[in-house]
Amino acid sequence: MHSRKIIIIGGVAAGMKTACRLRRLDANADITVIDRSENISYGACPLPYYIEGLYDDLMEVRKTPAGALRDETFFANVKGFTTLTRTEATAIDRQAKTVSIRSLADDTTEVLNYDILVMATGNTPILPPVPGHDLNGVLPLKTMEQAEQLDQLADQAKNAVVVGGGLIGLEVAEALTKRGIQVTLLEMKDQVMATALDFSSAALVHRELRKNGVNLRLSEPLQRIEGKTSVEKVVTDQGEYPADMVVMAIGVRPVVSLAADAGIALGATGAIAVNDQMLTNDPAIYAVGDCVESIDLMSHKPVYVPLGSTANKHGRVAANAICGHPDRFPGILGSLVVKVFDLNVARTGLSAEDARLNGYDSVSLTATSPDIAHLYPGNKPIIIKLIADRSSRKLLGAQIVGPGVVDKRIDIVVSALTMGATVDQLAQFDLCYAPPFANAMDALHQAANTMRNKLDGLADSMSACEAYERLNGNEPVMLLDVRSPAEYEEIRIPGATLVPLGALRQRLDEIPKDQLIIPFCKLSLRGFEAQIILQQAGFTNVCYMEGGVLAWPYEYE
Amino acid sequence: MHSRKIIIIGGVAAGMKTACRLRRLDANADITVIDRSENISYGACPLPYYIEGLYDDLMEVRKTPAGALRDETFFANVKGFTTLTRTEATAIDRQAKTVSIRSLADDTTEVLNYDILVMATGNTPILPPVPGHDLNGVLPLKTMEQAEQLDQLADQAKNAVVVGGGLIGLEVAEALTKRGIQVTLLEMKDQVMATALDFSSAALVHRELRKNGVNLRLSEPLQRIEGKTSVEKVVTDQGEYPADMVVMAIGVRPVVSLAADAGIALGATGAIAVNDQMLTNDPAIYAVGDCVESIDLMSHKPVYVPLGSTANKHGRVAANAICGHPDRFPGILGSLVVKVFDLNVARTGLSAEDARLNGYDSVSLTATSPDIAHLYPGNKPIIIKLIADRSSRKLLGAQIVGPGVVDKRIDIVVSALTMGATVDQLAQFDLCYAPPFANAMDALHQAANTMRNKLDGLADSMSACEAYERLNGNEPVMLLDVRSPAEYEEIRIPGATLVPLGALRQRLDEIPKDQLIIPFCKLSLRGFEAQIILQQAGFTNVCYMEGGVLAWPYEYE
Repeated sequence: MHSRKIIIIGGVAAGMKTACRLRRLDANADITVIDRSENISYGACPLPYYIEGLYDDLMEVRKTPAGALRDETFFANVKGFTTLTRTEATAIDRQAKTVSIRSLADDTTEVLNYDILVMATGNTPILPPVPGHDLNGVLPLKTMEQAEQLDQLADQAKNAVVVGGGLIGLEVAEALTKRGIQVTLLEMKDQVMATALDFSSAALVHRELRKNGVNLRLSEPLQRIEGKTSVEKVVTDQGEYPADMVVMAIGVRPVVSLAADAGIALGATGAIAVNDQMLTNDPAIYAVGDCVESIDLMSHKPVYVPLGSTANKHGRVAANAICGHPDRFPGILGSLVVKVFDLNVARTGLSAEDARLNGYDSVSLTATSPDIAHLYPGNKPIIIKLIADRSSRKLLGAQIVGPGVVDKRIDIVVSALTMGATVDQLAQFDLCYAPPFANAMDALHQAANTMRNKLDGLADSMSACEAYERLNGNEPVMLLDVRSPAEYEEIRIPGATLVPLGALRQRLDEIPKDQLIIPFCKLSLRGFEAQIILQQAGFTNVCYMEGGVLAWPYEYE
Repeated sequence: MHSRKIIIIGGVAAGMKTACRLRRLDANADITVIDRSENISYGACPLPYYIEGLYDDLMEVRKTPAGALRDETFFANVKGFTTLTRTEATAIDRQAKTVSIRSLADDTTEVLNYDILVMATGNTPILPPVPGHDLNGVLPLKTMEQAEQLDQLADQAKNAVVVGGGLIGLEVAEALTKRGIQVTLLEMKDQVMATALDFSSAALVHRELRKNGVNLRLSEPLQRIEGKTSVEKVVTDQGEYPADMVVMAIGVRPVVSLAADAGIALGATGAIAVNDQMLTNDPAIYAVGDCVESIDLMSHKPVYVPLGSTANKHGRVAANAICGHPDRFPGILGSLVVKVFDLNVARTGLSAEDARLNGYDSVSLTATSPDIAHLYPGNKPIIIKLIADRSSRKLLGAQIVGPGVVDKRIDIVVSALTMGATVDQLAQFDLCYAPPFANAMDALHQAANTMRNKLDGLADSMSACEAYERLNGNEPVMLLDVRSPAEYEEIRIPGATLVPLGALRQRLDEIPKDQLIIPFCKLSLRGFEAQIILQQAGFTNVCYMEGGVLAWPYEYE
């Protein structure tokens, strides 16, 4: 019996997943995985937590939950395939179906035949070629070796600059801050997580970073890095920042040159184009993981969002396809979650800005709620932004930020988005409830119902950003705080007038009829109640502020 | 303009929600809520935590998250409607459209007209008429007054008996145990949460109860309660249990006599029957909350599952319907979650037993995984049981038990069930991932993929309960532990043989070919790997044990 030769180039997440699944489906295939590094099959996502000091042995990122090291012997004995480490694939000959490889250990070369080839070449950090980028102490965080270097640099560093406010930049900024280092975070855009979050959500992250001592510099691109042999400072057009170490985290790009040189087609994003079986334009070549682009399930456009969660799914689908086992990879929602100090930040689907760019007539809604019963110890608020299509009422996306539990609610929305649910359906989901876990009406139900009120014209509301603009505009506006005097004493929004909700029906004569009234409270509910009371009393120009004081991303008094 | 008179009988969750929403939709309606108690609008679900001592002021259960007490004044001033407390509705005249009421304060009576009537009469605990049920110190937990009494009894009690292993019984058993009281939990069935969980899931709860010192007595119905004026002991056919207090928690039934006397139709469950607008058989009478039955979204049959989460949704739908605003209540999934000491327990949809009773050809699958990245501090295992329809591959239900985060995964399944997702779709959900929140392949993805393997005939597996039966059967069986020697030393299943997975390919000659081999590991993955290795080596009678050591509900060595 002919035993198929399958070569997989790249032995981290997607490549190894493909190999393991292949072996389970096909006892006879001759499977070889090739990787440049010695450190195969490692998890890159936990590396920032190593720098933070949350675990001591860096090799943990290569271990199974049961503690087995995923090395060549493990893959041979347990998984049953061959791994060639410190081996580079230098060329692919698609006609001859061969891969040329070179050993990094002894520089020997070899040509391997394949029946099936799988590209799992991953991503590489983008390193801007600014002056000083090659100084010692300037590096990205992608490999275990870099994590080790950054950990050692952090032992000595007093000041660090992190360039880029994406996921890795945020995680490293937190890790270094917790090591006692003064961190400056440089971001060229006016917000962190610019491709993931709308400004209103990102602004809450900005506050958390600053609260924890990070010197956050927005709209400030890196100009150059200075130092003799090692970095000493980072220079922008707005200032100079002392730095004993610089972490480059402006993003990654797919590693595609080997594929492109062989004529494997790239997609619009520059990553390898594949169909929903992970097959490239060559019927013998598949591609998986961070070197390929995916279809966005909401926009139906190709996107490049390299994440470990996607890579694992790719590997399974590719192996199934290679073995003729029905499966398909439908696409992604750009779901992600990140912990930034005491704030949890998650998103999925389209942002309001994405929805606009994709031509949707969308409605956004922000609602703040406690994550669990307010009388159960440990409850914390979360601020939910939902985006929905106005006519179909289908959910388009969500962003949730807060000290409370956000990943749970984003994952419910992930499920809802994947299945095409409307906000009306979401509002009726029979989510599980008990005080230690949720409210009888979960935060997500509250948000969905508030969105329904808005879609139905029952609630007139605006975001905190809109309210801020109106407040600073030319027309007179009354920002009406309907909380209790005690709450007002504790923290307040500048320029607001206090009329507690319970007294509002009796004090209507204090509310001007000739200007826009913007009621608000701590969360959202009393602000909405105030809008209803005022409208039922004949006020025609009332629009409550969504999300309350807790969603206000500007200064408090 | 005619202002509609709307009377709502019952002012706890569903009734008050209906009233509040009505006022927001209709400025002119004349809305009156009637309740027997002084303590209206309270949350019953947090009462066990009061007994546990997690909050000090019982009135918290009547307060808004902002701290406002929801009393008559609050509902008048903030919400804008009338509440008559300590007032009993004694009769409904549907022809005359009147409700007769009686003041419990001064015994005066009155007859009120209505245009629309809403029944929100709730539930009442079932109190078995055993001898001694009326002794002092024997009571259910339903009202704030009872919570206060139980709290006071607990101050003096050394021994308590809780009758009934449902949600309230479990929560009270934990609360009293944490107060230092020796608790005996009597359950007449052979498992706790009998209507919610399959035995395999409940068995894990049994272990947790016993580990925490609860004297769990299964299959042991209450016979009588003894004492002079106060309870002294509880007697069953198997023993006597000293008791300074007895909590009756065998279940609740809907309060329907007022409705039934007026000819409002009851459903098959004995609760009030309503359509998806919460309308009864009388076009002027709606019913909401714990006095009505719901449609089960999976079985399409009427069920009686009174929960606060459902009650709130009912109220909104009823108010919308009354005001002609489009909405419908689609039904429920019987979703619930409960904390039992350090174990979180949640379920939704059909159990395996429900699926069988409803005529499904269903497949069940148990898989154990860490809830977050295994190298991130605080990760804990969860044991997921999925139930799916064999031919359509649609999910039918799930049960998740473990010290880790279970509510998140159940709620994802809730969404999937509501929208009719298959296990294949669930496996591809783009759930959010970062090490503090999940694994790259979430526990739910692992479970879904394992279910796919089982449905596709790639994985031959059996539950721990099946393995236990085979082990204790007449045929020879090899229970094959493929964990590491260190894991084996720590804890093991009686009768298992150790061959670590990494050595299995080399030690195949030690495995008998003539008997059933049941490999297993700590979670599930290595057990499955072992099955594949053995099958690929020619072993034909191999079936791995799902969920590993952590899902084993019997004794360990």
